[in-house]
Amino acid sequence: MKSDLPALMEERNYDALLVFGDALHNPAMVYFTGVVHVMNGLLALRRGGEPLLFCHAMEREEAAATGLAARNITEYNYPAILKDCGGDHTLAEARLHQRMLTDAGITSGRVVVYGLRDAGANFGLLSALNELMPGIEFVGEVKDSMLHEARATKDPQEVERLRAILKQTSEVVGQTADFLSRQKAKDGVLVDADGQPVTVGVVKSKINLWLAERGLDNPHGTIFAPGAEGAVPHNTGRADSLLRLGEPIVFDIFPVEAGGGFWADFTRTWCLGHASEGAQALYDDVRYAYETIIGELQPDTPCAGYQMRVCEIFKERGHPTVAENPATTEGYVHSLAHGLGLDIHERPTFGRDSTGKDILRRGAVVTIEPGLYYPDRGLGMRIEDAVYIRPDGKSEVLAPYPLDLVIPLK
Amino acid sequence: MKSDLPALMEERNYDALLVFGDALHNPAMVYFTGVVHVMNGLLALRRGGEPLLFCHAMEREEAAATGLAARNITEYNYPAILKDCGGDHTLAEARLHQRMLTDAGITSGRVVVYGLRDAGANFGLLSALNELMPGIEFVGEVKDSMLHEARATKDPQEVERLRAILKQTSEVVGQTADFLSRQKAKDGVLVDADGQPVTVGVVKSKINLWLAERGLDNPHGTIFAPGAEGAVPHNTGRADSLLRLGEPIVFDIFPVEAGGGFWADFTRTWCLGHASEGAQALYDDVRYAYETIIGELQPDTPCAGYQMRVCEIFKERGHPTVAENPATTEGYVHSLAHGLGLDIHERPTFGRDSTGKDILRRGAVVTIEPGLYYPDRGLGMRIEDAVYIRPDGKSEVLAPYPLDLVIPLK
Repeated sequence: MKSDLPALMEERNYDALLVFGDALHNPAMVYFTGVVHVMNGLLALRRGGEPLLFCHAMEREEAAATGLAARNITEYNYPAILKDCGGDHTLAEARLHQRMLTDAGITSGRVVVYGLRDAGANFGLLSALNELMPGIEFVGEVKDSMLHEARATKDPQEVERLRAILKQTSEVVGQTADFLSRQKAKDGVLVDADGQPVTVGVVKSKINLWLAERGLDNPHGTIFAPGAEGAVPHNTGRADSLLRLGEPIVFDIFPVEAGGGFWADFTRTWCLGHASEGAQALYDDVRYAYETIIGELQPDTPCAGYQMRVCEIFKERGHPTVAENPATTEGYVHSLAHGLGLDIHERPTFGRDSTGKDILRRGAVVTIEPGLYYPDRGLGMRIEDAVYIRPDGKSEVLAPYPLDLVIPLK
Repeated sequence: MKSDLPALMEERNYDALLVFGDALHNPAMVYFTGVVHVMNGLLALRRGGEPLLFCHAMEREEAAATGLAARNITEYNYPAILKDCGGDHTLAEARLHQRMLTDAGITSGRVVVYGLRDAGANFGLLSALNELMPGIEFVGEVKDSMLHEARATKDPQEVERLRAILKQTSEVVGQTADFLSRQKAKDGVLVDADGQPVTVGVVKSKINLWLAERGLDNPHGTIFAPGAEGAVPHNTGRADSLLRLGEPIVFDIFPVEAGGGFWADFTRTWCLGHASEGAQALYDDVRYAYETIIGELQPDTPCAGYQMRVCEIFKERGHPTVAENPATTEGYVHSLAHGLGLDIHERPTFGRDSTGKDILRRGAVVTIEPGLYYPDRGLGMRIEDAVYIRPDGKSEVLAPYPLDLVIPLK
């Protein structure tokens, strides 16, 4: 958690950290500032010091709301710097940042860099800045991010924010179930009182309204994917797709606090009216895997072990898995779990891309999301909940919601 | 526009371009792919060639929907690469990208880089990749982006998408005006039928619903800032703030197409019931500036000239401006205008940070947004519309909406 940062900076031998970009939808910045309307800012933190936030004059009140010490970028008079640099933006930006870093007391040492920003612009800036400040070694961490390491465990306030957005999300899931159960069937297809098809697009627009009523953002949309669409895990469902009774619909919903704070991530798979035989069989296996894994979670164990374990469970039940064939598109095709926080996917990592070194610690909040996919049979099935590994070592589903497969029509 | 890219690449001597990141809320990627649910992708374009999109197996159907040639990143078997690299993610990612670039035919030359991505991770990756592929010179453009140069003019389809979202936005503005006009006053404060204050938070949640009904995202929220709050241009308005009759409320609304496509940007300043004398006087000056500038827009003229012109107009009327004091927080304190497109602020630039070289071309879509601010008097005032410079050279406000200052209460 955040209080680990001084020790982590020492461990990695960083003298300072920088975060570039907005304080909206920018997890590294929001970790320090909260969600505020500060655009194109810079946060500087020396090891052992307090964060200093640079922002533009127009946003000074927003910056003040963060409670952090703040400096006004506008006072550096960029137009004058640009003029001195003959209109060369790269040099002018480098000089501007040289002055800001100097004022933040950062003139040498190892400086690690974060922030969601244009990759090219930042590469150009750091390259130019390094020529002006050769005593600084800028460090860019690829996947092995210190901030993500700190964020892999949550403090109680952060857990409560996650619990709150997950609870709001489960309420929207409940509204969705109610809405579906109030519709009718005609020739095996879901229709409304007027006999018009209730398409994926209709359902998604209801979901967006219910999320908006709660003040949640939904920047990545929602997966509401029936039949063959749900059989490809990240297919989001076409707006004009019909909902057929009996076939599974993968409903994966992942809104974020307004402005880009903590995320929810939650999946149920539903069959309307009844479940087809194939859907029921997959459901039984996925639910068994879900309950087995949730029951086996223990603090201070390697995350990769759970990915191996779920592959075993599915293999025993006759499904292909990524353990034997990393490129399989049938059976169990993805990772079991991921940390959840200011990024929708963060540490700890469980899956195929991890180094296998992440440990499930007390304070972690992780999704558990086993699933099975058979594109040729038009079947996809996934169950996902967010689980908190409490300080007492017990696991807690943060926003419990029924696991039922079938939504009966009234 | 996009058809200018081959010539621009030749002019800047680029052999290829790369875009990193998601195809959601990532303008450089969305420019090529449209909004699709592809995460952590890579788009590679050789000069004179066609774009090639690398994406993960789970998102292959989404990638196919772009119509671009696509490759499956999963087939490169990252876990095996990582194992070969002894668990070193930086080296493994560099080797993965070396293989992808090689398969895209990019092994040497000047390669310009784009995409919204973690600044540190990308810096680390490019630095490591450069060691493996020393024949490539990676270029990061600071502010002077070739893609933004292409995007500074819009093709007819892009203009129609901007017109559509601006029209939807103006409808929401109309709903907001109707809602406000149906409320009552009590002791000079806006209240509902039950006598409860209609706060900024109440209005913003209505706006979010009306945006959601239209399928629009609102990732940066809305500025609805009464009195002293509106006197600081980027203050968004506190949820618990009251709306007092007569005082100006700055209402700046900037939603985006779902998933991060084209943006709207639109401002009106309203007084409820009546306008205070101070508000009316500022309004008269801002409206005069707005109408004068709109009337003077001409294609093939320098954008910076309009910023100078509006400073003149305001100075003549007795207001401090950034022309005399770039750090002023009173009077006219920001830029007149900016290009509008897949970024909310894009080229052409008019303001203080520009090199003064941008030309207002046919095909541009720009905001025109003069404003005046007096924090000590609790007064802010801004009017903003998006204007299209048509192929015939005429200027067209894309979504006309009344400029009235006063919202009468019924």
